[in-house]
Amino acid sequence: MPTNRQILLKSRPTAAPSAENFELARAEAPEPKDGEVLLRTLFLSLDPYMRGRMNAGPSYAAPAEIGKPMVGRTVAEVVTSRNPNFANGAIVQSDNGWQDYAVSNGAGVNKLDTNVVKPISLALGLLGMPGMTAYAGLTEIGQPKAGETVVVSAASGAVGSVVGQLAKIKGCRAVGVAGGSAKCKFVVETLGFDACIDHRADNLREQLAAACPKGVDVYFENVGGATQRAVWPLLNNFARVPVCGMIASYNDPNPQTGPDLRSVLTKRMTVRGFIVSDLAPKYPQAHRELAGWYHDGKIKYREDVVDGLERAPEAFLGLLQGKNFGKLVVKVA
Amino acid sequence: MPTNRQILLKSRPTAAPSAENFELARAEAPEPKDGEVLLRTLFLSLDPYMRGRMNAGPSYAAPAEIGKPMVGRTVAEVVTSRNPNFANGAIVQSDNGWQDYAVSNGAGVNKLDTNVVKPISLALGLLGMPGMTAYAGLTEIGQPKAGETVVVSAASGAVGSVVGQLAKIKGCRAVGVAGGSAKCKFVVETLGFDACIDHRADNLREQLAAACPKGVDVYFENVGGATQRAVWPLLNNFARVPVCGMIASYNDPNPQTGPDLRSVLTKRMTVRGFIVSDLAPKYPQAHRELAGWYHDGKIKYREDVVDGLERAPEAFLGLLQGKNFGKLVVKVA
Repeated sequence: MPTNRQILLKSRPTAAPSAENFELARAEAPEPKDGEVLLRTLFLSLDPYMRGRMNAGPSYAAPAEIGKPMVGRTVAEVVTSRNPNFANGAIVQSDNGWQDYAVSNGAGVNKLDTNVVKPISLALGLLGMPGMTAYAGLTEIGQPKAGETVVVSAASGAVGSVVGQLAKIKGCRAVGVAGGSAKCKFVVETLGFDACIDHRADNLREQLAAACPKGVDVYFENVGGATQRAVWPLLNNFARVPVCGMIASYNDPNPQTGPDLRSVLTKRMTVRGFIVSDLAPKYPQAHRELAGWYHDGKIKYREDVVDGLERAPEAFLGLLQGKNFGKLVVKVA
Repeated sequence: MPTNRQILLKSRPTAAPSAENFELARAEAPEPKDGEVLLRTLFLSLDPYMRGRMNAGPSYAAPAEIGKPMVGRTVAEVVTSRNPNFANGAIVQSDNGWQDYAVSNGAGVNKLDTNVVKPISLALGLLGMPGMTAYAGLTEIGQPKAGETVVVSAASGAVGSVVGQLAKIKGCRAVGVAGGSAKCKFVVETLGFDACIDHRADNLREQLAAACPKGVDVYFENVGGATQRAVWPLLNNFARVPVCGMIASYNDPNPQTGPDLRSVLTKRMTVRGFIVSDLAPKYPQAHRELAGWYHDGKIKYREDVVDGLERAPEAFLGLLQGKNFGKLVVKVA
């Protein structure tokens, strides 16, 4: 059997994680039993939610286990099938985790239509969890109406870039917040947002206010922190805040404070946290529409591809610091 | 014409209001013109939202004006009608404000069916704005399901008392938070809540946790402050938080901090501010059901009646400190 490189969770971080929390191991690739398939990882998705999986505490999913490969979504090839539902050579979306090979009984393994999901790494981004998150969170919770203003943080990222482009398709003013002038330039010039503010700016609040002359009707929250504090006073009556991520505080071991709920009361706002699976009924529509818009060129999508499984920890640590530029994926094979 | 006593807003408080902010004046009762009615105030409602009306800042309604009678809902008698829609002697719900007499062209004046709204002061409480607030906020935003746990703050008050009894009718565990042992006793023994915790207790959090062994699915927020901080960690996945009032912080001139929105994310909670008029489509159903349950004895309702318009400022200041016990109304005539 071939060698299976694995990135194991070695220890749990108490604050910011470091390379010490991971360990590269080598094992033999597992042997599929009857009914199982052997999957070879082609692409591994790196996403902010994985920081939560490194903690032991309760969250919406079980924590990753110490000494086991880090969890993660993958695009994979069926190398050896002993399951009649999967042919050898089929390309699938699976949950192999941070390793070269995994076996599966087929549960949660989805065959990809490579005529639609092209390139196949789209299954980890625009046409996968991040795209569904953007589409479902914006349409179901954000409910943007033409003429409204939608602000999204982490605007050049896998989710934020889709949120803002969807807002434009729906006739809204789309304002992004991103880290640094290169990302902001991309968000406006390539993605077509109306404006993008660098969250590192001293006068973030003033710049945001200037970019949102009619206030903010939808704030799609990916980061929290200073961006949240700057956006909050700009929210209009009946504003909707889909809370999708809070990456700015994922490394804080203690709860932070948030906005005064008096503002939620007097502005009659709706603040709702969600994860993508809560909105699963939206997937088929989201997949169809996003694929169509992407192939028509109406939605642009940028990937940040890191070559080699060994580099996954370093790339993930960079993601938590905003060093990636576009959807972060690791090319494994 | 008779004398019209008026309690004017003399000045705006910057923090806690005091008697100095009000002034008793006497004028002649106004004369109704063609199409108008002269209304004599029988009962005046005193409600926490009035603290907001004393401020100049933007909120969901225009501020009360300096030198004018404080705004407020009333039950009144039509003394002189020059409007064919109202007979002399009719009992109505109106917005006379803090005064003996007011004229109106009939807009916003609603005739009361005194066979249903009995006693007539119910139009300011259970069968008025507070009752509609409780019903609409709990059913529309809280969406309690049988077997769930509903916590409500200010549990002996006009809104909270109805919220908890409705929760019981819907098959939930109802836990109140109120100020002092007399109120807590009333909430459990008379209103039939499963438990009630004194928010002045040192171990508020521990007592609440013990009273909510399966966590909290709906937190109907009337007060904010320490109660909010104690309830928040107990909220379950998919908890709903109708934000109806924040009386604990109405006198704080500056925004406070609120809960970390990471909890909203990881627990996929919905936090929604509202005022009763947002949920107006619910009024007829709410009125019908609450009246039925009240007359059947399934809903108990307590009023705190203060005698005399002159005592309105003192009673209102007490309301902000939780000194009332039940729905606070002023018997004016």
